[in-house]
Amino acid sequence: MDNLLMEIIERNRNLVRNGKVADYIPALGKANPEDIGVCVADLEGNIYKAGKYNKKFTIQSISKVIGLMLALIDNGQDRVFEKVGYEGTDEPFNTLYKLDLPHVFKPANPMINSGAIITTSLVKGNGEEKFERILALIRKIADNPSIDYNHEVYMSEKSTGHKNRAMGYMMKSMGLINGDVESILDCYFKQCSIEVDAVDLSKIGAFIANNCKGLDAYGKIDREKLTSILVGIMSTCGMYNFSSRYAVEVGIPSKSGVGGGIMGVVKSKMGIGVYGPALDENGNSSVGYGIMKDLSRELKLNLF
Amino acid sequence: MDNLLMEIIERNRNLVRNGKVADYIPALGKANPEDIGVCVADLEGNIYKAGKYNKKFTIQSISKVIGLMLALIDNGQDRVFEKVGYEGTDEPFNTLYKLDLPHVFKPANPMINSGAIITTSLVKGNGEEKFERILALIRKIADNPSIDYNHEVYMSEKSTGHKNRAMGYMMKSMGLINGDVESILDCYFKQCSIEVDAVDLSKIGAFIANNCKGLDAYGKIDREKLTSILVGIMSTCGMYNFSSRYAVEVGIPSKSGVGGGIMGVVKSKMGIGVYGPALDENGNSSVGYGIMKDLSRELKLNLF
Amino acid sequence: MDNLLMEIIERNRNLVRNGKVADYIPALGKANPEDIGVCVADLEGNIYKAGKYNKKFTIQSISKVIGLMLALIDNGQDRVFEKVGYEGTDEPFNTLYKLDLPHVFKPANPMINSGAIITTSLVKGNGEEKFERILALIRKIADNPSIDYNHEVYMSEKSTGHKNRAMGYMMKSMGLINGDVESILDCYFKQCSIEVDAVDLSKIGAFIANNCKGLDAYGKIDREKLTSILVGIMSTCGMYNFSSRYAVEVGIPSKSGVGGGIMGVVKSKMGIGVYGPALDENGNSSVGYGIMKDLSRELKLNLF
Amino acid sequence: MDNLLMEIIERNRNLVRNGKVADYIPALGKANPEDIGVCVADLEGNIYKAGKYNKKFTIQSISKVIGLMLALIDNGQDRVFEKVGYEGTDEPFNTLYKLDLPHVFKPANPMINSGAIITTSLVKGNGEEKFERILALIRKIADNPSIDYNHEVYMSEKSTGHKNRAMGYMMKSMGLINGDVESILDCYFKQCSIEVDAVDLSKIGAFIANNCKGLDAYGKIDREKLTSILVGIMSTCGMYNFSSRYAVEVGIPSKSGVGGGIMGVVKSKMGIGVYGPALDENGNSSVGYGIMKDLSRELKLNLF
Repeated sequence: MDNLLMEIIERNRNLVRNGKVADYIPALGKANPEDIGVCVADLEGNIYKAGKYNKKFTIQSISKVIGLMLALIDNGQDRVFEKVGYEGTDEPFNTLYKLDLPHVFKPANPMINSGAIITTSLVKGNGEEKFERILALIRKIADNPSIDYNHEVYMSEKSTGHKNRAMGYMMKSMGLINGDVESILDCYFKQCSIEVDAVDLSKIGAFIANNCKGLDAYGKIDREKLTSILVGIMSTCGMYNFSSRYAVEVGIPSKSGVGGGIMGVVKSKMGIGVYGPALDENGNSSVGYGIMKDLSRELKLNLF
Repeated sequence: MDNLLMEIIERNRNLVRNGKVADYIPALGKANPEDIGVCVADLEGNIYKAGKYNKKFTIQSISKVIGLMLALIDNGQDRVFEKVGYEGTDEPFNTLYKLDLPHVFKPANPMINSGAIITTSLVKGNGEEKFERILALIRKIADNPSIDYNHEVYMSEKSTGHKNRAMGYMMKSMGLINGDVESILDCYFKQCSIEVDAVDLSKIGAFIANNCKGLDAYGKIDREKLTSILVGIMSTCGMYNFSSRYAVEVGIPSKSGVGGGIMGVVKSKMGIGVYGPALDENGNSSVGYGIMKDLSRELKLNLF
Repeated sequence: MDNLLMEIIERNRNLVRNGKVADYIPALGKANPEDIGVCVADLEGNIYKAGKYNKKFTIQSISKVIGLMLALIDNGQDRVFEKVGYEGTDEPFNTLYKLDLPHVFKPANPMINSGAIITTSLVKGNGEEKFERILALIRKIADNPSIDYNHEVYMSEKSTGHKNRAMGYMMKSMGLINGDVESILDCYFKQCSIEVDAVDLSKIGAFIANNCKGLDAYGKIDREKLTSILVGIMSTCGMYNFSSRYAVEVGIPSKSGVGGGIMGVVKSKMGIGVYGPALDENGNSSVGYGIMKDLSRELKLNLF
Repeated sequence: MDNLLMEIIERNRNLVRNGKVADYIPALGKANPEDIGVCVADLEGNIYKAGKYNKKFTIQSISKVIGLMLALIDNGQDRVFEKVGYEGTDEPFNTLYKLDLPHVFKPANPMINSGAIITTSLVKGNGEEKFERILALIRKIADNPSIDYNHEVYMSEKSTGHKNRAMGYMMKSMGLINGDVESILDCYFKQCSIEVDAVDLSKIGAFIANNCKGLDAYGKIDREKLTSILVGIMSTCGMYNFSSRYAVEVGIPSKSGVGGGIMGVVKSKMGIGVYGPALDENGNSSVGYGIMKDLSRELKLNLF
């Protein structure tokens, strides 16, 4: 298996050329597009890995899955989806305009930025506590207590994230956000700046694939339902407006981030973590997409 | 199994009250909301059924799956998706406005009306031939040579379908449609007026679930790929802008129509046909949704 | 005065380079961008002219003023503006998308295509009669019985006008249009193809500037009101989404057409007709705009 | 004249019933809808007034004219209109969505909130200085050194103005705003909270009607041009998306505010100030509109 992973990496390495490292903040622009890693974690606890699987990168939008998970744990499905929809969208991750159309009352889904700001706002906790709870949950489900956020990335996101700020205040004006917008965004920028590697992602994926087992400390949870929500939403919205094409070509519920990561969930089987910082025009890792496509075919993981 | 199906029907009968029979044309308004049927066809050829499984209704948007199938057979994936996207959308089935935004070059996906008009336009054949080929394909995959269209419904759709006409001419002006718009719409209105029952739908679903086996007469086809496209698109776009929520709650790739039908595909296992003409606010059968939810839970069919 | 007009033409001749002759249909593309004409008609019946003032060109969107005039005569202000708004817009003349937004119930104003199709639909008359009444009104107010439409341009507009067709069917589906869409569009394409010269435009402008005097044959009309509507709408919407800038720089209520004409109305003083077929990016005559600016300054006509 | 004004007030008093006092902040909701005042200031220095002409109210959006004036004085026409358009709009004053459409690069015009935030950002001065310069200009052109802002209204606007904040950050992300968004909004909220009466408004109107004479202290200014810009923009955009209808019915370039004021400019003749806090559905004073209509007819002021 490790050999297969290495082979798949090499087969897709040339896709680096189809992408470009995110550079809207300097800290991201420093990533090396040739750093490619992959890790598969099955539900028996086996870990298969290849390439730069232990290269750290920021989790970025993949944190939206964790934010949604904790918002659901803290509030339940109904209260979360009062404020954010379950609708795929043909708009990019940072779309704002629909929130200002009179027939729209909430963000389309929790995987676009506006929707993720909502789920962050719904995570319980005041000030720092909100972020600490998100960090604690990631550490737990990745089984890695050393996970932390990158202060430089966080500070850069915070100082340039004006469009996210616009979304935050727009949703405040719509009555969707309680509490202080700046403080919620602060948490959001921090959660996006959490550093992980491909191994961490694969373990988070495996945790979800295993029906979110191991959350006893969080009280009574309908784990089946929690998992269906997370995986169903990842499947239809996880790869931004490329989600539907990705469903066709890969067929593994996944979530990507502009840090270059992709996390895949194969229910009852495995979690997958991929890293490749060059991004295609949809903001997904270009190499990562190729690797997921090959993994899906080689291991017959396509759901569709 | 037949008992289970009957029980599920009865359990969901009260959902009739949450819906309303489509009445934009008189022929549809005559449907009896209490006529509820369900049929499951497995890949061994067994048929399980309950209720008004042999009640005829118009296939409406479920024909979009057949239109896409034939467009793919006739043109291949690349040429079809030059003119229509693979993107889920948070807009309703009859949305038009995005086609007039300067950054949008094609309909979001083949399951909304505009996208389906594109796939109809791509089906090979002049004049009547286009429709005859669609009808022949449905008859074949449903294994029912008696399937035909309802002339009254067709004439009504044709005389009131001005918004579809607007879409057609808009896409003509965008260079997405070759040929005569009225003649393409004529075919589209006819394909929507094809009459089926729940048994037909379950067999069409089973055909797709069986990797579209049996298309030899159509030449060399990558059946795996064809199936992934159909099922992937149904999963992310098949229930209109309710698709993502439906993925969470049901997790069976499905397509609905305003005639009251829902067709489900459980890959390598079975096809499902449900009928219940009362529609919820998303245009999906209200009872049908409840039945699909129960079937998914009882038979453990949720992919997510 | 004739000398001043000639001088102003020469001063602005180089603006030809800032524009491009419309070429969406071949007949328009044949126009010579160096053909520039201007004519001023005062209310005493004096005519001042220079350049190619008797060069014929199609009236195009300037006909929207006549269409509005006749719709108002036939229906009154209230019934016309039930179906079209009085709102300036920051969208181009052929915008469609807003009609599909749920909070929009009618076209923004009668100077964009969708709004003009509405006013054409409101002109009384069956089949050919509708167009004949529009033509008769133009002949009367331009005091030129030889005015007619260009059959080649009409046929070209008709065969390529798919976006206008999309608007027509969209508005039919919204309940804004009674009668047959194709027949209304036929009239619209014909009215746009009417041929005039700068002298004709100046006389139409003078007619309006003179409070629409001379419509006795049309029955009892509140001429003050009719004039205020026409001039107020021209002032705020007549130059497409350039109207507000034009108000600042020129300050003469005007209407332009892609045939290269601009008609100006200086109330109680004069009408102005300008011709220059090279169009700027807003679809207005580039030379015509320069000439109007100079005329406004030299003759102190700026209202603002 | 004073009698005519009183008569016009009484004639329109019943229009109070067609409107509603703005109540998005408590301080505005306290206004008495029966307090109606009007004042006309001609260019010879005569002042005619009637009703509650000395009732103080907040200037609100009428301050956008002053903000535009000072931005033009400080930067010139070209630099201002690089960042804000000259386009009328069919959207309400607080519209945001277009800024997020890919073909839109700046707010439509300086009379909607987003555009006014731009002009405020362009007024020279750091921190408090920006506002002090706006206040000084209003005091000067209204010839009333006692004008000041209402601290309670300012604090309320500041604490509830989240949609304006969203616009500010959106435009920051578009590169349209230099400097700190919160500090610019602070100035914007203060300028909207400036208290005036109908007399002040009439004098500001008369100042503009008199070609902005008296700005020598501000350096060399093309006063003709400055005036054309202000009046041209008021004429096409000053009454929000009602501007075009208002042009037809009143024909006096005007600007309204949700405080209940309307300021009219009759070039080379007079300024008009009207107060009536009940607002119609477009956010314009319902009584004020009626009064302006009657004034226009009685004094023959309609430009169109």
